[in-house]
Amino acid sequence: MNRRMILFRVGQILVLESAMLILPLIVSLIYREWVELLAFSLTIIISALLGLIPVILLKPKNKVIFAQEGFSTVSFAWIMLSLMGAVPFTISGQIPNYIDAVFETVSGFTTTGATILNDVETVSHSMLFWRSFTHWIGGMGILVLVMAIAPSGGGRSIHILRAEMAGPVIGKLVPKIKNTAKILYIIYFALTVAEMIFLLCGGMPVFDSVIHSLGTAGTGGFGIRADSIGSYSPYIQWVITAFMFIFSLNFNLFYLILIKKIVPVIKNRELWVYTVIVFLSTAIVGYSVYPIYGNVHDTVRHSMFQVVSISSTTGFSSADFDLWPPLAKAVLFILMFLGGCAGSTAGGLKISRLMLMAKMVRRDICTLLHPRSVAAIKVDGKPVDKTVLQSVSVYFMIYIIFIATVFLIISFDSMNFETNISAAAACCNNVGPGFSKVGPMCSFSGYSYLSKIVLSAAMLFGRLEIYPMLLACNIRLWFRMPKALSGKK
Amino acid sequence: MNRRMILFRVGQILVLESAMLILPLIVSLIYREWVELLAFSLTIIISALLGLIPVILLKPKNKVIFAQEGFSTVSFAWIMLSLMGAVPFTISGQIPNYIDAVFETVSGFTTTGATILNDVETVSHSMLFWRSFTHWIGGMGILVLVMAIAPSGGGRSIHILRAEMAGPVIGKLVPKIKNTAKILYIIYFALTVAEMIFLLCGGMPVFDSVIHSLGTAGTGGFGIRADSIGSYSPYIQWVITAFMFIFSLNFNLFYLILIKKIVPVIKNRELWVYTVIVFLSTAIVGYSVYPIYGNVHDTVRHSMFQVVSISSTTGFSSADFDLWPPLAKAVLFILMFLGGCAGSTAGGLKISRLMLMAKMVRRDICTLLHPRSVAAIKVDGKPVDKTVLQSVSVYFMIYIIFIATVFLIISFDSMNFETNISAAAACCNNVGPGFSKVGPMCSFSGYSYLSKIVLSAAMLFGRLEIYPMLLACNIRLWFRMPKALSGKK
Repeated sequence: MNRRMILFRVGQILVLESAMLILPLIVSLIYREWVELLAFSLTIIISALLGLIPVILLKPKNKVIFAQEGFSTVSFAWIMLSLMGAVPFTISGQIPNYIDAVFETVSGFTTTGATILNDVETVSHSMLFWRSFTHWIGGMGILVLVMAIAPSGGGRSIHILRAEMAGPVIGKLVPKIKNTAKILYIIYFALTVAEMIFLLCGGMPVFDSVIHSLGTAGTGGFGIRADSIGSYSPYIQWVITAFMFIFSLNFNLFYLILIKKIVPVIKNRELWVYTVIVFLSTAIVGYSVYPIYGNVHDTVRHSMFQVVSISSTTGFSSADFDLWPPLAKAVLFILMFLGGCAGSTAGGLKISRLMLMAKMVRRDICTLLHPRSVAAIKVDGKPVDKTVLQSVSVYFMIYIIFIATVFLIISFDSMNFETNISAAAACCNNVGPGFSKVGPMCSFSGYSYLSKIVLSAAMLFGRLEIYPMLLACNIRLWFRMPKALSGKK
Repeated sequence: MNRRMILFRVGQILVLESAMLILPLIVSLIYREWVELLAFSLTIIISALLGLIPVILLKPKNKVIFAQEGFSTVSFAWIMLSLMGAVPFTISGQIPNYIDAVFETVSGFTTTGATILNDVETVSHSMLFWRSFTHWIGGMGILVLVMAIAPSGGGRSIHILRAEMAGPVIGKLVPKIKNTAKILYIIYFALTVAEMIFLLCGGMPVFDSVIHSLGTAGTGGFGIRADSIGSYSPYIQWVITAFMFIFSLNFNLFYLILIKKIVPVIKNRELWVYTVIVFLSTAIVGYSVYPIYGNVHDTVRHSMFQVVSISSTTGFSSADFDLWPPLAKAVLFILMFLGGCAGSTAGGLKISRLMLMAKMVRRDICTLLHPRSVAAIKVDGKPVDKTVLQSVSVYFMIYIIFIATVFLIISFDSMNFETNISAAAACCNNVGPGFSKVGPMCSFSGYSYLSKIVLSAAMLFGRLEIYPMLLACNIRLWFRMPKALSGKK
């Protein structure tokens, strides 16, 4: 196990974080928020120092990493990132309790968007910016970013890409990982700017446009108003709906469009299945909430906004869907689990995984009817490897067990059944708001510290698709850790 | 496809049902319930006539049946059984609406125990008896009964046993299926009588003892008092707790004890895992409800009663657990899905299936850590076949999709989120009561007819472990049906 490489990477991440903190520092300068300025400055120094130690001391000779190192790197990096990212909130006193701050930061980086803030409108501009900026960083993945900008690391960085990117199968866009990472980030950046422009055209203030573009791009969902997107104009709500949908699509498709290969995009099954799910869900939700709004336009707008927000696991809201009829809530609850497309910034199970599951079920029934038939499972014309199928089915088991466990532990708190089950689903799938006491107009502040820590872990498990975090929990790895500092293998 | 054989078997079932209806007819004579007497007599005649037609006309020449015939036979038999079993309720006017009566009967045969009766204490004795007798018949399986008593059918009846008995792997106790079925029913009958004697010793009236023994044996849960078991003595509650536990164990174990092979019973892993789950759940529920009862004895009694009642999927209640704290409800909710041991009369996923799932997850993580290790999955020392593992994982997917679908459809009704999700879980897993509006002190009467039909189907799907019913929904099978009457293949 190449522990030097892990610590080296984590060090890099901390240095990168201190660099990223310069952006909110600038925002605090613009808005003359001096306490925040101090908080960001201090965090930048701490983070840079902590990060530089392993980067300078542990320069690895052996850059080769395997799956285990890739997974461990990703989970340690994400944990450190969140622990450090929470510091400015606490130093500045905006979120005085560190556990609350960690919850908020984890929720940011994992693009969940669940908040413990009861009154978001009193938070300072720079802190709001940092909060939403974490969504943007977490959306595409911090290690993908490192790969895109750091000097080429050689080694098998595909394992890192695989651990941080979501979905059952991750392909490279171009032969070199570094270039794949670069292309992904360029598309990501361009789409974010595009949304910002659309929002500005709708008369949204600059600050608000930036915040909401960052939040949409990462499919995060942190807002800056008590009613999320509810008080913005219908135009703005439609723009956000469109971009939430775009950011929950497989980024490979955008690359294909970029290199003018339109046919495979149109033929992409996942895209179609996802689109059908979104429209079908909108229709059912619309049928359910029509009596509330009384006219077609509002009904369609609010239904589609909420459906896309939940299925893309963003978590913005244009209406308090907790007050909607049970049918609408049932649809939204189920959508929480489905998630967006693989290779997007969305959370949840991912459509391509569900499609594989559906195909496995179909094959099993066929085999039952015609015992001698041996049908291979194909995706986009190509047969799927047996190990992929096996890992999808095992992932599904572990995923359900994981959500049930989180649900059980947070039930030790005094919240009601509906709150707990929706909180577990919303955090594990990185959606954000749930129902009842954690509905879109409420916050997670009512939970105990234990539950907040568990839910923070749940968001990390969910974002990294369970395995990397499970490996990080491997006790043997921790016990052998001291050796790592001496660089021995 | 051997359609003659299917119709022949279904005919046999109807004849058998008319024979079984003689028992409640006797009860109606004892209690001088003349309307009920008429209702039972009429149903006996109809059922016998309808059943004798295929039995006499379609005597099959070819008795060989395969998986498909086995599955189809079982589902058609169960559907016919329920449709016919509901007739006396409607004729007698005790449940005037036929859809309600079908719901009640399906709930009986599938050993669910969900009721639409708002005031069970006004129902006549003979109808209460018939209601609980359906639990007893459904618990072990009606076709298993046919195999036990009908002249040896030859053919591969193992497919019927497999379709009707629950769990991932069904073994035969003795080489001959007929004898296996006989032994199972003898054990079942003996244990039921044993419970009855224990209840009588506790001073329970004869009628009540019979009803509750039948309900416990089938892990059904139909009671005859508004508060289920709540107003009976602690002794009786403990007896029922013990027997609910016993009937949710694998019946093979009792056979092993009978032939004095104690070691494999003690070494049986499923038994231990199930026991640990029950005690652990009792501890958590006890911790949660202690403030309500204030003393250890009541706390332990009520906690264990509810835990065993739900995990065995019986559904009796000694307390209104809907009023319990969210932690206790969370535990009970999760237990609904686990179910009892394979080869018992319990519903749910079954412990042995969960154990296989846990092993698959563990193997997957091991492979991740040590990619070259190839660990075989073993149960009780024997390696498990790949196809079994695959079918377990696919079953889990189809099972979750199934419950989600039921939840979605019944959400079209006006019930709240908690009611719907618990109703779906309770019916699909054949538990019975859920939370909120379908809690242990309430009934399913508030649902619309559409939801009642959907929930009835859900109970049948759940009892037969989905596949048989899915095959019965196969349209091609229905379209080819007319040919069957001519006996062509």
